[in-house]
Amino acid sequence: MSHWQRITGGVTAAKGYRAAGIAAGLKASGAADLALIVSDVPAIATGVFTTNHMCAAPVTYCRQRLQTKGTAQAIVCNSGQANAATGEQGWQAVLAQAEMVATALGVSPEMVLVASTGVIGQPIPLDKMRQALPTLTANLSDDGGEAAARAIMTTDLVPKQIALEAEWEGQTIRIGGMAKGSGMIHPNMATMLAFITCDAAVSPHLWQEMLQRACDRSFNQITVDGDTSTNDSVIALANGQSRTPAIAEPGPAATRLEEMLTAVCTYLAKAIARDGEGATCLIEVQVSGASDDAAARQVARTIAGSMLVKSAIYGRDPNWGRIAAAAGRAGVPFDASNLAISLGGIAMMRQGQPVPFDRAAANTYLVNQAAASTDPSGQQSVDHPVVIEVSIGHGSGRGVAWGCDLSYDYVKINAEYTT
Amino acid sequence: MSHWQRITGGVTAAKGYRAAGIAAGLKASGAADLALIVSDVPAIATGVFTTNHMCAAPVTYCRQRLQTKGTAQAIVCNSGQANAATGEQGWQAVLAQAEMVATALGVSPEMVLVASTGVIGQPIPLDKMRQALPTLTANLSDDGGEAAARAIMTTDLVPKQIALEAEWEGQTIRIGGMAKGSGMIHPNMATMLAFITCDAAVSPHLWQEMLQRACDRSFNQITVDGDTSTNDSVIALANGQSRTPAIAEPGPAATRLEEMLTAVCTYLAKAIARDGEGATCLIEVQVSGASDDAAARQVARTIAGSMLVKSAIYGRDPNWGRIAAAAGRAGVPFDASNLAISLGGIAMMRQGQPVPFDRAAANTYLVNQAAASTDPSGQQSVDHPVVIEVSIGHGSGRGVAWGCDLSYDYVKINAEYTT
Repeated sequence: MSHWQRITGGVTAAKGYRAAGIAAGLKASGAADLALIVSDVPAIATGVFTTNHMCAAPVTYCRQRLQTKGTAQAIVCNSGQANAATGEQGWQAVLAQAEMVATALGVSPEMVLVASTGVIGQPIPLDKMRQALPTLTANLSDDGGEAAARAIMTTDLVPKQIALEAEWEGQTIRIGGMAKGSGMIHPNMATMLAFITCDAAVSPHLWQEMLQRACDRSFNQITVDGDTSTNDSVIALANGQSRTPAIAEPGPAATRLEEMLTAVCTYLAKAIARDGEGATCLIEVQVSGASDDAAARQVARTIAGSMLVKSAIYGRDPNWGRIAAAAGRAGVPFDASNLAISLGGIAMMRQGQPVPFDRAAANTYLVNQAAASTDPSGQQSVDHPVVIEVSIGHGSGRGVAWGCDLSYDYVKINAEYTT
Repeated sequence: MSHWQRITGGVTAAKGYRAAGIAAGLKASGAADLALIVSDVPAIATGVFTTNHMCAAPVTYCRQRLQTKGTAQAIVCNSGQANAATGEQGWQAVLAQAEMVATALGVSPEMVLVASTGVIGQPIPLDKMRQALPTLTANLSDDGGEAAARAIMTTDLVPKQIALEAEWEGQTIRIGGMAKGSGMIHPNMATMLAFITCDAAVSPHLWQEMLQRACDRSFNQITVDGDTSTNDSVIALANGQSRTPAIAEPGPAATRLEEMLTAVCTYLAKAIARDGEGATCLIEVQVSGASDDAAARQVARTIAGSMLVKSAIYGRDPNWGRIAAAAGRAGVPFDASNLAISLGGIAMMRQGQPVPFDRAAANTYLVNQAAASTDPSGQQSVDHPVVIEVSIGHGSGRGVAWGCDLSYDYVKINAEYTT
């Protein structure tokens, strides 16, 4: 039983945050393409960034910036241009963005974090961004979270946001978040971005550790096509405006906050996987029996990322053999005679060998979960994943990973668009 | 300029080898499904096997067998059942196959190596195999290589074989080989298999080292979908029937033999990649400038395996951004400002930034290479790959990897077939 509840909203649900999202003309389509998140007061800030060696200028900027100073007051994010592979010009563009947003907000440039998503190798039209800033700041409001979530979308089909609320010694703590997915319809358009806002008071060191662990269990456990982008970033702010006691040391309060943060990250991660290009359903792989959690997570990721498993799920085929083969190549040693696999609770393999099972029921399960992955109003749901359970031994290590099925539309989306 | 030439034939091109391939009724389709390769005399034997922890019984058998005894006289391989995830029954089946083939050939069971490819989790119908053995041995001939190559096919569209011949101090040395690809049309049907026959005399230790290095440069550098199978095996025999001087130590003769062996493995590897499921062309990624060859090979493999790169090539899209992003996530550190990318000799990126290039010419190159990947008679060609050149720095490390494009048919093949 979780100690929090979900409430409506996203990054502006927590106290002391405003946000806006507008169309600044950066995207040729005219869709919203510029988002701003602002905390009323300087917030503790930390981030987790792509490990891609071709990382984009804003990623380098934020990583360096947060290493030297653990606070921030604003995050500006454009969609349309990734500002990756842009060299010195790209670096200067990041500095210019921080400067212009800081001026508009009346804060120091070093309090502004910068993110980008879009086409690699194209410069950001800074003039258009500058011209749009008065409108952007005028639109800042405490219910601007959804507009901001929409403005960072590229090929996402739906905006992704969540907010959680918990009672906390008679007061209320909230964490909100928004994300965009790994859609790559447009050539070179990559990026998983997530921005998280929290109104608790927490020490920078703890907040950083919490975010890293939360990412390891959520964003680092999703895979759409295995292609880590040049711009992947998760940035989390904590501004203390809940007026709850500061969390400065590990303990029950820190644990509760980390659980909430992990829940926010997990929801957003699942929403990204569900919205993978061409996906018709969310796949959740639960691995147990490993020597430790890291090993379990690695096996789960490998299965969730297997093209053969993904294709089989798209075909609604309860193909235990492909799951077993993917587990076997994950780089985690295990005794094949210990392998057990089930799908939606239907056992398909035990002690390394197939067991008779009701194929029609397994197929029906897959069909039903896929159908439930889109609700009657056409909205995506993350509440009905295809659940694959795998046990590889007798250890206590557990891990979960999420992915999506591989459909014709993935190929269509990624092949048919020609630059 | 290579010191050998290609000749017709496959595993029976070298002296002292016979082979056969017949339909033993193991496949429901009635297609050929049982292959036998026999050396007239005991041959030096070595193998390289899958690292998948769910490896099949015949893989475990051959690995153990070759660790204790470095010679063999026959390889029997069935298609239809992989004999993977079959437990103790599967192990007994391997022993029974070795025994029955040994009896039929009048050799010791330990001289018989066993391989399987097909559906995971199904027992091999040993009675049918036993009944077919008289026909199989009666069909053994020194031009039976192609029949054997056909009998190990599962979802391969074409048989894969090659033979090379070199003049060697006035005499002739030949190496032949055959392979089947990573086709996985049938659920759970996996496996890359290659069998190589050589008539040179070489020491077991050298032969093993040569094969490992050759595999690292060839079979380990191809990727269709990243799904390592439970049965992947490469077995190489050398029977000394060329009557050329024994190669017992490293030196010019050993180098020449290894170059030939590597050429055989490389051809077969490329043929497997070209015949990847749904593939319309072969992709060759050449990486240079790495700190060492292993790093270069890793970057090359990552690019060749990127779903986004594969989709772009299928769309005939000269998408340098995806190539750059894949290089960046390969786990090999490099300075982004050193990255250079070209496609078919057309420079698309230099010093980490895009350069203007003729998009129409690049698109035409992709269209032309794909068209040339199938010759007018409908045969697949490995001589016209889409060549992606990537330089990541100033080191001397070089590496090549091969893959294929990702088409609708890959999804169709792997999703639409339902167990």
